[in-house]
Amino acid sequence: MNMKQYVVIGCGRFGSSVARTLYKMGHDVLAIDSNEEIIQHVSDEVTHAVQADATDENSLKSLGIRNFDVAIITIGSDIQASIMATLIVKELGIKYVVAKANNEIHAKLLFKIGADRVVFPERDMGMRVAHNLVSSNILDYIELAPDYSIMEIAPLDDWVGKTLLEIDVRSKYGVNIMAIKHGYEMNVSPIAMDRIGKDDILVVIGHNKDLEKIEKQVWS
Amino acid sequence: MNMKQYVVIGCGRFGSSVARTLYKMGHDVLAIDSNEEIIQHVSDEVTHAVQADATDENSLKSLGIRNFDVAIITIGSDIQASIMATLIVKELGIKYVVAKANNEIHAKLLFKIGADRVVFPERDMGMRVAHNLVSSNILDYIELAPDYSIMEIAPLDDWVGKTLLEIDVRSKYGVNIMAIKHGYEMNVSPIAMDRIGKDDILVVIGHNKDLEKIEKQVWS
Ligand SMILES: Nc1ncnc2c1ncn2[C@@H]1O[C@H](COP(=O)(O)OP(=O)(O)OP(=O)(O)O)[C@@H](O)[C@H]1O
Ligand SMILES: Nc1ncnc2c1ncn2[C@@H]1O[C@H](COP(=O)(O)OP(=O)(O)OP(=O)(O)O)[C@@H](O)[C@H]1O
Ligand SMILES: [Ca+2]
Ligand SMILES: [Ca+2]
Ligand SMILES: [Ca+2]
Ligand SMILES: [Ca+2]
Repeated sequence: MNMKQYVVIGCGRFGSSVARTLYKMGHDVLAIDSNEEIIQHVSDEVTHAVQADATDENSLKSLGIRNFDVAIITIGSDIQASIMATLIVKELGIKYVVAKANNEIHAKLLFKIGADRVVFPERDMGMRVAHNLVSSNILDYIELAPDYSIMEIAPLDDWVGKTLLEIDVRSKYGVNIMAIKHGYEMNVSPIAMDRIGKDDILVVIGHNKDLEKIEKQVWS
Repeated sequence: MNMKQYVVIGCGRFGSSVARTLYKMGHDVLAIDSNEEIIQHVSDEVTHAVQADATDENSLKSLGIRNFDVAIITIGSDIQASIMATLIVKELGIKYVVAKANNEIHAKLLFKIGADRVVFPERDMGMRVAHNLVSSNILDYIELAPDYSIMEIAPLDDWVGKTLLEIDVRSKYGVNIMAIKHGYEMNVSPIAMDRIGKDDILVVIGHNKDLEKIEKQVWS
């Protein structure tokens, strides 16, 4: 098992969630924020929490940042600070740097100065929430790849009481039912003879075009 | 087909993504923000965009908010404004109100004053990003339910060139391979005889406990 050392720069809602989750998984996490109050708040949930300005190279150097494997830069509103911090940690020699972007231009800049990965938490969750609002039958929607998604769906009235073989979404819509939720339990290897209950939720995977056909069916 | 009318209150990164996605899907979207610059920015991407203070009941009334089916309140830093706006749209009679929360206390308040659903975009994406950072072989990690997740994984060296039948993750780990990505294409109905290529990515579903066993295998 190869536990890594992570430094999280910026501990807003996104950064603190990343830091807390990594720490819970057993990793070493250094959390940095310029706001002292925020640092006090996260200090119980990470290995170390330090108040520092991440645009100040000397501060980061003196914290021994060069020894970390991964840096996650989650400074949000202050784009200039986000760019600067990314540049500094990259120059200090951190191998893998993930940065949060506010928009495409911000992302391009981050890649240009050496970010290895750029994430858009608000944009991605916005798309996900929008998709699962359009119909009360569509409960969740997650993009897996540009053209493929996973959709959680309440069964159409037609489907209730039938087996997967009988409803045959694979040949009708080109998608696959990969799991069936029954309350708190989930059947992650459904077979042709499994029967759909009224309160079940189906987890379906497919090409967006094919999933849209089901979305339309659900609305009609 | 039953197209709904959505009002999005607050057009930061999350709110504007929700608004844009709903509009792209063909719905009527009214976007409201107190910041005039932000309103100009989203005006091309929604049906109507209006500058207004969402804590001012009369402003919302005069915009005909009562006629909308769904309101999404995404005001962030200003918790008081988020609570106030939620209360007002609920009192104006909107049936389904979704609100973004910064933390659990904020969420509780939102539910208490009538929010029908509360979302935590930054927290949820933070958990997702943290999970997919822990190993270079684990490319993505999405919680489906409290105990079940989907994991994207690069194949272990052992698995390359073998069929799904041969690697048999179902009996070894209790999880299921629900899709195989080959470059831009995705095989969403893999069969026992499908062979795993070096550059393929496997999309695996299972109980968190079982997925963790694979995560450990990947690290070792
Ligand atoms: N120069 C800096 N050095 C260290 N931390 C900083 C710096 N600038 C901002 N931060 C911190 O980064 C965190 C995130 O910034 P901000 O709140 O502007 O972003 P956000 O995108 O709205 O955050 P989130 O959506 O994750 O809550 C804040 O806690 C802030 O104090
Ligand atoms: N009273 C209000 N009426 C209307 N809009 C408001 C009001 N208060 C704040 N807003 C708007 O809500 C939007 C989101 O608020 P803010 O930027 O504080 O949240 P955030 O959580 O950092 O956003 P995000 O992470 O989605 O970018 C902003 O564009 C802001 O102008
Ligand atoms: Ca945010
Ligand atoms: Ca519906
Ligand atoms: Ca903010
Ligand atoms: Ca690894």
